[in-house]
Amino acid sequence: MTEPSTHPVSLTVHVPLDAGRDYDILIGRGLIETAGARVAALGGRRAAIVTDANVAALYGDRLRTSLERAGLGSGIVTVAPGEGSKSYAGYAQVCDGLLALKVERGDLVVALGGGVVGDLAGFAAATLRRGVRFVQVPTSLLAQVDSSVGGKTGINAPLGKNLIGAFHQPRLVLADTATLDTLSEREMRAGYAEVAKYGLIADAGFFDWCEANWRGIFSGGPEREEAVAACCRAKAAVVTRDEREDGERALLNLGHTFGHALERITGYDSARLVHGEGVAIGTALAFRFSARLGLCPGQDAGRVANHLALAGLPTRLQAVPGGCGDADALVEAMAQDKKVRDGALTFILVRGIGQSFIAPGIDRSEVRAFLQDEFAADLRP
Amino acid sequence: MTEPSTHPVSLTVHVPLDAGRDYDILIGRGLIETAGARVAALGGRRAAIVTDANVAALYGDRLRTSLERAGLGSGIVTVAPGEGSKSYAGYAQVCDGLLALKVERGDLVVALGGGVVGDLAGFAAATLRRGVRFVQVPTSLLAQVDSSVGGKTGINAPLGKNLIGAFHQPRLVLADTATLDTLSEREMRAGYAEVAKYGLIADAGFFDWCEANWRGIFSGGPEREEAVAACCRAKAAVVTRDEREDGERALLNLGHTFGHALERITGYDSARLVHGEGVAIGTALAFRFSARLGLCPGQDAGRVANHLALAGLPTRLQAVPGGCGDADALVEAMAQDKKVRDGALTFILVRGIGQSFIAPGIDRSEVRAFLQDEFAADLRP
Repeated sequence: MTEPSTHPVSLTVHVPLDAGRDYDILIGRGLIETAGARVAALGGRRAAIVTDANVAALYGDRLRTSLERAGLGSGIVTVAPGEGSKSYAGYAQVCDGLLALKVERGDLVVALGGGVVGDLAGFAAATLRRGVRFVQVPTSLLAQVDSSVGGKTGINAPLGKNLIGAFHQPRLVLADTATLDTLSEREMRAGYAEVAKYGLIADAGFFDWCEANWRGIFSGGPEREEAVAACCRAKAAVVTRDEREDGERALLNLGHTFGHALERITGYDSARLVHGEGVAIGTALAFRFSARLGLCPGQDAGRVANHLALAGLPTRLQAVPGGCGDADALVEAMAQDKKVRDGALTFILVRGIGQSFIAPGIDRSEVRAFLQDEFAADLRP
Repeated sequence: MTEPSTHPVSLTVHVPLDAGRDYDILIGRGLIETAGARVAALGGRRAAIVTDANVAALYGDRLRTSLERAGLGSGIVTVAPGEGSKSYAGYAQVCDGLLALKVERGDLVVALGGGVVGDLAGFAAATLRRGVRFVQVPTSLLAQVDSSVGGKTGINAPLGKNLIGAFHQPRLVLADTATLDTLSEREMRAGYAEVAKYGLIADAGFFDWCEANWRGIFSGGPEREEAVAACCRAKAAVVTRDEREDGERALLNLGHTFGHALERITGYDSARLVHGEGVAIGTALAFRFSARLGLCPGQDAGRVANHLALAGLPTRLQAVPGGCGDADALVEAMAQDKKVRDGALTFILVRGIGQSFIAPGIDRSEVRAFLQDEFAADLRP
């Protein structure tokens, strides 16, 4: 009997934060089944799971069994699936649920799910009894490559996305890549927008690799673990140098100022737009805006939009079902973003693929004119 | 014309935390009127005030005018007075109010009020846009000597007090002692329970001083500033050595395990019991419990109860209007306290006045028996 040549592969990315806050990201198939021993190694008497109803049905029992076999009594707090749970009400539900499970200061919270669950459970862990430790078990591509790493946790406010939150690093991340087999095509594509982003920010070689290998990520070849690890390594490096986003960490927001505004305007309605789709459109816009400002070659903007479109992602404002308002509404939505300082808009712009930079003080009228032209663009072939 | 011999006196206590997080506590009359320049010196474009309706009527305009004269545009978020605002709903109200005022990352939140406002506004500041700076302007004796210093912020959960929160240090504390002139006698007494506590924890000399000088604190003599400064110095020293309560900071909870349970059982109804009254009863109980365990001389327990009673504070379970359940209910309420580890109760006990220590692993049945006897005590003279 021979081992499969490429699977199971398990990769580890270390996040070397100071003061005993460093942690490992494990990436591979089947990590949920073996989670118990790894979580138990962190210490603690109890590990309470936070998840959503969809993920609970698929992996809740499996994780709970693994934790209990490792001697960690573990209840489950289950929220409704979707961005709507990342709210004040969802936050209160998770906190009260964890308190009802008698989670104490030395215990652990395990976030099992996509970005919504990770952000919500992480924020609850950050503030429950003024802070308990937590473990991320991300089950979406987006969460595995982006939101589960780096310690940003939080919820949405009526006035905007992620406006309430805390920096709270996980003690361990278990990215079980087998969970991606059950993701919808749409969710995979949405996560892939963040994968491509890492190449576009600062690693043109990785974007080349993505163009050549993206299908393997979707189909579950070894490219999947390679891509997740590459993204985590890139994010870990940035987070280690700038944990609290005083500087370069903002580069990770490439495509997000436009993207968040689109999400806001569509009311965080995932039937119309999910985060990764907003990021895909936002990234294409950031490249075209950069090209319009004379910063970036137009052919780079075209290459980026073509690749995202090939992977099935939207790249135009016109692609948003039900529309997304007009240029004024989008600029106003952007002004509510966290990345506002002294009233001026800050964008992540590019000088080309892999050459992003922080551009503070962008004039609103410049953005408005660009968006007006985008809305007016004739998309007939 | 001659200056008053003792007033205005202005004292400064420095809290020497690391990493640029050190800050000053200023103590004196009239600090609200001069707050603007001091807050402006911290930098920022905007300083939004969080307060309650009672305090807003007394000092809201005065503080706002001072901030605006210093060039800090400043709106006000006003919550309902009382512990009920330290809730999920109050938290959402303050966060949304600050966002509506367009508070940005570099701006400041100014908490104007007692302990409820300070804890609530501090927690909102800790988590708004993942953390903005804040200034405490405590207007109750309790807040000036205890809750405004040390960075503990938070709200109550239905399952218990202060179960949700964050460590977030203020950048400045302005304790305007003139605001205490408008406090009710009951609020002064409640704050005084925390003043006496500092002597009982680790400074027998300060408790002696309190016995001799407490009336000056109430009447607004120079003893008031001296007492506030002494308490802040004591707290600052503890917080600097143990910011996150891994050890000795827990000593500040003398009287609080019993006190929190009483507050919980009385539904946080300030008509029946305010925090300081719970602490007074809890402190007297901690001394009597210590004496019963043979740890502390009975005469010290008597001396403490006598002094608290002389200052008009309750020292007996029977003093709670409407009653406070029975021993079983109190023990159950204590088990919900944050100071639970692995199911055992942790108390702050004493070997005498000024000699407190952390006593983990206290058996519930021992506590229950003590409380049963307290309830059964014949209080006839």
